[in-house]
Amino acid sequence: MNVAIVTVGDELLAGRTTNTNATWLCERLDDRGVSVERVTTVPDRIDDIACVVDEYHTAYDAVVVTGGLGPTHDDVTMEAVATALDRDLEENEEALIWLEESGYSRGDLTDGTAALPTGSRPLHNENGVAPGAAVENIYVLPGVPSEMKAMFESIESEFTGIQTVRETVVADEPESALLDRITDVRERFDVAVGSYPGGSVRLVLEGTDAETVEEAAAWLRERVDVAE
Amino acid sequence: MNVAIVTVGDELLAGRTTNTNATWLCERLDDRGVSVERVTTVPDRIDDIACVVDEYHTAYDAVVVTGGLGPTHDDVTMEAVATALDRDLEENEEALIWLEESGYSRGDLTDGTAALPTGSRPLHNENGVAPGAAVENIYVLPGVPSEMKAMFESIESEFTGIQTVRETVVADEPESALLDRITDVRERFDVAVGSYPGGSVRLVLEGTDAETVEEAAAWLRERVDVAE
Repeated sequence: MNVAIVTVGDELLAGRTTNTNATWLCERLDDRGVSVERVTTVPDRIDDIACVVDEYHTAYDAVVVTGGLGPTHDDVTMEAVATALDRDLEENEEALIWLEESGYSRGDLTDGTAALPTGSRPLHNENGVAPGAAVENIYVLPGVPSEMKAMFESIESEFTGIQTVRETVVADEPESALLDRITDVRERFDVAVGSYPGGSVRLVLEGTDAETVEEAAAWLRERVDVAE
Repeated sequence: MNVAIVTVGDELLAGRTTNTNATWLCERLDDRGVSVERVTTVPDRIDDIACVVDEYHTAYDAVVVTGGLGPTHDDVTMEAVATALDRDLEENEEALIWLEESGYSRGDLTDGTAALPTGSRPLHNENGVAPGAAVENIYVLPGVPSEMKAMFESIESEFTGIQTVRETVVADEPESALLDRITDVRERFDVAVGSYPGGSVRLVLEGTDAETVEEAAAWLRERVDVAE
């Protein structure tokens, strides 16, 4: 299963907020064996969000969109997702009932609070007001981290992939000096190797068979200057 | 001037690394009045990188690409940028001379260290080996933060835009209760307003005229329950 993540928000693009929502989602999806193929941040503009969601929902098995839910003028994500899918926005009765049961009275809710693309399955917000939505292969979550995380956990089981195993070998040698052993380990074992320099070099071995990955890491540790 | 940022790396998509390079670049570009329109993370795969760079370099005034430079098999960014622009990769003589002057002997450098898309202007790496490149409207920088930052600073003056001013008002009211005053301040003053909930609500007022933004913030502070 492959997935794209779309994070919505001018504050991310202005560098006022670090995109830790993306890190968290990537880690969770990776833990489930799902391959995240894109993480894209877009501004709080309907056309921009709709354009990217439209592209990704046909290109990937699923799209997770986060941010831009709520009652203010800059919360345009639901409208954008509806636009991308050529659907209308309409008050979702199931979401309204859930909000009432959670103690919000309909009269007090801002108009449009529960407006989701037609045909959506509402996703309940345990830590806030604005509901999320699942529609076609698109999951729309809030941007506030506590709300996003709780909502993702309620749908997490819908994401499944092939579990991989990783081992990291940290080498105290320049990356260029390690090339021969990187080539060797890739040839000898059925593992993918990522090389991440910066001070020491982290060599990340990844594969679907735990034993193979372990053997490859052991082989490599005997042949590089392992950092303490 | 509008810009897209492309960050390259499987480690970002697996959630093993938080994309602080993107935050740093966004903040720097925003400080210069440049509008960042997209931040997209792509895997260490030539086709994926090339496809996104190709799209963005025609859609935006400039593209900043970071990550995936270096000697290992997973460093494919230069090849991908060359592919996107339908150019070859070739050893850049100016980059090699700079490396020699910095104390690296040609014989010791890994083959391809200074291979850049044909016609590139090399960007020198003050904190590492792999040179960057400026080609057409694309700037290719390393992914190691210290290397990326120093290299960006050497080209920063090529990014210019319209300076904006921001004031933040933090309100101790639910976002939905603030809607009337958000509408009012947008109507009365020539400012854009961003609303960021999560505990208190941060209302960010932004405009090109410092006095207007200050007046708008003062007007708003008198009318909301300002958080201590």
